[in-house]
Amino acid sequence: MTMGRCRLAIELGFLFLASAVFAGSAGAQPMPLLNLMPVPSSVQQGTGSLPIDSRFSVTLLGYTEGRLERAVERFRGQLSRQTAIPWAAKPSVSGATLIIQTVHASRAVQEVGEDESYVLEVTSTGARLTAPTPLGAMHGLQTFLQLVSVSPEGFAAPAVTIHDSPRFPWRGLMIDSARHFMPMAVIQRNLDGLEAVKMNVFHWHLSENQGFRVESKKFPKLHEMGSDGLFYTQQEVRDVIAYARDRGIRVVPEFDLPGHSTAWFVGYPELASGSGPYQIERHWGVFDPAMNPTQEGTYKFLDEFVGEMVQLFPDQFFHVGGDEVNGKEWTANPKIQEFMHSHGLKDNQALQAYFNQRMQSIVSKHGKSMIGWDEVLDPTLPKDITIQSWRGADSLAEAAKQGYRGILSNGWYLDLGWSAARHYAVDPFGEKAATLSAEEKARVLGGESCMWAEYVDEENVDSRIWPRNAVIAERLWSPAAVRDTEEMYRRMDVISTRLGWLGLTHKTYYDKMLHRIAGPATPEQFAALRNLADVVEPVKDYTREETAENEPTSATPLNRVVDAVPLESDQGRRFNELVQTFGNSSCQDAGSELRLRSQLALWADNDAAMQSLAQTSFLAKAVLARSQDLTAIAKVGMAALDLVKKGGGALNDWKERQLAIVEQAEKPKGQLLLIPASGIKALIVLAASPAGCSPAH
Amino acid sequence: MTMGRCRLAIELGFLFLASAVFAGSAGAQPMPLLNLMPVPSSVQQGTGSLPIDSRFSVTLLGYTEGRLERAVERFRGQLSRQTAIPWAAKPSVSGATLIIQTVHASRAVQEVGEDESYVLEVTSTGARLTAPTPLGAMHGLQTFLQLVSVSPEGFAAPAVTIHDSPRFPWRGLMIDSARHFMPMAVIQRNLDGLEAVKMNVFHWHLSENQGFRVESKKFPKLHEMGSDGLFYTQQEVRDVIAYARDRGIRVVPEFDLPGHSTAWFVGYPELASGSGPYQIERHWGVFDPAMNPTQEGTYKFLDEFVGEMVQLFPDQFFHVGGDEVNGKEWTANPKIQEFMHSHGLKDNQALQAYFNQRMQSIVSKHGKSMIGWDEVLDPTLPKDITIQSWRGADSLAEAAKQGYRGILSNGWYLDLGWSAARHYAVDPFGEKAATLSAEEKARVLGGESCMWAEYVDEENVDSRIWPRNAVIAERLWSPAAVRDTEEMYRRMDVISTRLGWLGLTHKTYYDKMLHRIAGPATPEQFAALRNLADVVEPVKDYTREETAENEPTSATPLNRVVDAVPLESDQGRRFNELVQTFGNSSCQDAGSELRLRSQLALWADNDAAMQSLAQTSFLAKAVLARSQDLTAIAKVGMAALDLVKKGGGALNDWKERQLAIVEQAEKPKGQLLLIPASGIKALIVLAASPAGCSPAH
Repeated sequence: MTMGRCRLAIELGFLFLASAVFAGSAGAQPMPLLNLMPVPSSVQQGTGSLPIDSRFSVTLLGYTEGRLERAVERFRGQLSRQTAIPWAAKPSVSGATLIIQTVHASRAVQEVGEDESYVLEVTSTGARLTAPTPLGAMHGLQTFLQLVSVSPEGFAAPAVTIHDSPRFPWRGLMIDSARHFMPMAVIQRNLDGLEAVKMNVFHWHLSENQGFRVESKKFPKLHEMGSDGLFYTQQEVRDVIAYARDRGIRVVPEFDLPGHSTAWFVGYPELASGSGPYQIERHWGVFDPAMNPTQEGTYKFLDEFVGEMVQLFPDQFFHVGGDEVNGKEWTANPKIQEFMHSHGLKDNQALQAYFNQRMQSIVSKHGKSMIGWDEVLDPTLPKDITIQSWRGADSLAEAAKQGYRGILSNGWYLDLGWSAARHYAVDPFGEKAATLSAEEKARVLGGESCMWAEYVDEENVDSRIWPRNAVIAERLWSPAAVRDTEEMYRRMDVISTRLGWLGLTHKTYYDKMLHRIAGPATPEQFAALRNLADVVEPVKDYTREETAENEPTSATPLNRVVDAVPLESDQGRRFNELVQTFGNSSCQDAGSELRLRSQLALWADNDAAMQSLAQTSFLAKAVLARSQDLTAIAKVGMAALDLVKKGGGALNDWKERQLAIVEQAEKPKGQLLLIPASGIKALIVLAASPAGCSPAH
Repeated sequence: MTMGRCRLAIELGFLFLASAVFAGSAGAQPMPLLNLMPVPSSVQQGTGSLPIDSRFSVTLLGYTEGRLERAVERFRGQLSRQTAIPWAAKPSVSGATLIIQTVHASRAVQEVGEDESYVLEVTSTGARLTAPTPLGAMHGLQTFLQLVSVSPEGFAAPAVTIHDSPRFPWRGLMIDSARHFMPMAVIQRNLDGLEAVKMNVFHWHLSENQGFRVESKKFPKLHEMGSDGLFYTQQEVRDVIAYARDRGIRVVPEFDLPGHSTAWFVGYPELASGSGPYQIERHWGVFDPAMNPTQEGTYKFLDEFVGEMVQLFPDQFFHVGGDEVNGKEWTANPKIQEFMHSHGLKDNQALQAYFNQRMQSIVSKHGKSMIGWDEVLDPTLPKDITIQSWRGADSLAEAAKQGYRGILSNGWYLDLGWSAARHYAVDPFGEKAATLSAEEKARVLGGESCMWAEYVDEENVDSRIWPRNAVIAERLWSPAAVRDTEEMYRRMDVISTRLGWLGLTHKTYYDKMLHRIAGPATPEQFAALRNLADVVEPVKDYTREETAENEPTSATPLNRVVDAVPLESDQGRRFNELVQTFGNSSCQDAGSELRLRSQLALWADNDAAMQSLAQTSFLAKAVLARSQDLTAIAKVGMAALDLVKKGGGALNDWKERQLAIVEQAEKPKGQLLLIPASGIKALIVLAASPAGCSPAH
């Protein structure tokens, strides 16, 4: 084993060297990105490739442990799923294809900033994966899986030398399991997804106005009365934690306090600041109920509760929420007002800071570090706490300057429907954080994407997280210089397929939901629905409530087109790109023109079948206006294209009228945006340009 | 409860009456088939429909038991999955939407011929499901699920009165879990599928030359040495049986003897007729190894083995296989020859009959009825045995005449790639069985579809079983008069979607497999692969071995296009139908012409992207010849269409040359058939007809 260790030490030395070279050589030959996501710190492509066939075998050298062995078993299973190669019953003893070597154990409970590095060398005759600990080796196995693909001569991994380690130590996904309960299978397959993209934190949002989701043996009325029977047993929690640890993922629980806590008060109204009684909240929004921070009973309860939960959740961090307290119950309660007065707490913010101090001392007493949303930031709190910023990198920078550690979530709210490109552009060192000192920067631990669950359930939740979460994972893992958007979309498509093989449902849910909408339709009707659905997107940001016909609640079925379509329309994006390509060719590219024409013809003809489908389905009927718009703008597009080919120069009057049609179609309807509208507008501009075709830039 | 029973008795009386009316009224107004599969014995449509919303609730009256309550829970879950409606936390107490009433328990172990009938009445205000036992009620719940669909005003079930009971008491699916091991998830989701289509037998093929798949505590070398570690533990077997019973499904185990048994001999060579040693068989076909039927040790072993297995499998039937013994080991073994001589066994068939007699007495001693494939039929065996016919309805009729019970599987081998229509046309009372007496007919218990597993694994197995198995289920459940093929295809599409909602993977596996073949391709390349894959089918019947370039074995990855495409091409079938529609319109239907043209244009252009994909994928390269054929016949089709529109009358010489091109393309290549070829031929004939367009009939 000594030889192995020595070799590893040399390689690890080389790792740091290589990283330095990469960081300092922006102008050098570009690093091959292959199909990897996240892109490693350093990739050097070799010659040839390693064939993957049924003789493929793996050997573990050096330190090993149960979870690494299980990781290798999963790796073998996944490699077989990727290739459909059944492994030989008895692998050859004559030498392993992949040798894995680690030096020592990772920490018993995974810590922030643990060494996650690895080196992966693939040659045409074999592969070697070395890492200080199983944590790095597990990341390396995921990289190897991403290297393997179909090739001209069979399945193979390209010869390559990869030195890799993450840019940030905290790379997470938050799932809100409280607003809509997420069954165990959802959590597990998303943990598989996190492992695939090397994220290392699962932040589990477990309590809300709409539900308290963990079994408490100390305070059973929490889950019995606060969950509609939809909660995780303690055994299930332990299973999730073990499942996550096996994948190199920490589990950070969040119990959101002192607001967002109606569900607690159904069973324990005495904790609240109002007089109760309380019901599980069925609506969405910010509500009045809040813990009573002025009575000792609250802290006694929370002390015992935290004491129980830290037995369950081994992670060093304990998330107390702390966001969005509207303070109405505090203001309305004379006793609380009296307490504030007597303690010199001048406003609700001061009262919340007081509560947070008390919470911090409880969390700290139980050996944990407190983390909370922006609002917990208050100079009265010790520097031990960590801020999760939903407000932005500026706010994160401010915390770092004050000496607090922080993670970024602003810009990574998956429920807001942003494009992958927009999420990809966000950086924890963006905005004011760019100007932080090195010491301050070290306090920025990384970030988390957030899947808030007002409008997702187990059926469509994967589609809101994936594949886009992979590009956030890349931002947090890969060198900051890796930013090319086109290249990102190309690799995101590849990882999306791989995530589907892994069992995530973001690609398979769509047809199922469209079939529910269509009912027993004809193939033509179903195709029409799908043509329409393929080019719309849900309204963005926080407009979903505003644009709703009826107030959405937790009883609202998530079965409409807006629930079914992906957050980003590939087809819409590609159409708009195609118009640009056509324009850039001075409208000469016959291939682009043909594809534009056939696409427009399809849409122009699409509304007829949608009209008939609407006769039998209320869910199809609800998007008829959108369908008419699609057909209308497609006809505008066809006319524009004809004018372009006749030499352009359409009259201004015509242009204005056509633009008005399209602009009307650009407005949200049925909570849906019509994505090709912008491409059609570009066609109108081309048709009206005096030269016959001058690209609109 | 007395009232309820009385009402039920009346309704059951009505059931028999209604069935009689249906059977005798072929010329009356046709029964509405709705979207039900299998079609019930009797359906009377009412007025209006029952809205399904979040207030939906279920009440159980009369006799109940755990599995009925679990069935109701599953029903509620499935109804929620179909509609995405979250059920209210507290259902209203003021009255149930669906009242279920049963009279008494089903048998503790489900028996052949138990009462499976039910009556389901849906009105605009509620629904009532009555059945003698939970077995019928469970079938009725499935019918209710099939009634619920999207409507103009929300989700609803049409008002209807259904009296239903099966035509045959034995309606099964056999899954070969031995040639390719099928993980528990495969078995479970297929049991869900069987429940949905009211099949009531899961025949579990558990031992083969290629594997012995059940844990034996008495003879552990069976699974330890005969399975490559891929076997079901006894606990898993018990779980499957409980899972099946919960769904009204019997589990009939098959241990195939005395042939098909190489895997037994790896651990217990002393059972064999040859000298050994034996290895798990890796090839497909019929092999020499066979049990030694001449030594008492064999029967002592089998007696103990059967004794262990009957503890595990409670069903009344025990399947001993008995098929395809080539007798070579018997002929080659002098001791066996001596035994035959001394016992007056004149040939191997007689020796096998001797073995079967001994097996029958063992099975019988353990309280079970023996069932075996055609070959076990021998006049020396008692009438207690049951024949499973892979040879045909004639053979089944022959057995029935001799007094044996039988089930049909000929015509329902799912691995042979027949169309759903062809499977649908098969009937246990077809061929000579039609002439059986009523008494003889009663011996024909029903049938089983068979999923043999040379060319399926967990990834594509669902796609070979579903949705086609639903039409076999219909043949076995529904009145014989329900035979309309077009209507069958329409309803099969609907049930196919429902089976996908249930978790079966027959619709979702396809893209995943195509992406593996394509690798990280461009969207255009992937579309080209899919366009091609959409119109090819695997070669039929037993030609897969014949047409293979390399001999397929159990180590052959099932990752080629032939493994990925469905057994029946919807797109190909629809194209051919479209040509027929066009021809039937005397080539005047502009809509059909437009669709034909755009389809042909797509294919004519398709090979270019396939050529580029073949540069990077050996799996795409393997179907290049097929891709060229598709493009070639599409061009022929375009030319033919142009000629048709010019008035037809193409020269004979042209016709012959074009037909030659298409006929060449009709030959299998890459083990694939090109389905639109027949439509293209029809276009050629139209083009060459003197009148310009006379449909080819």
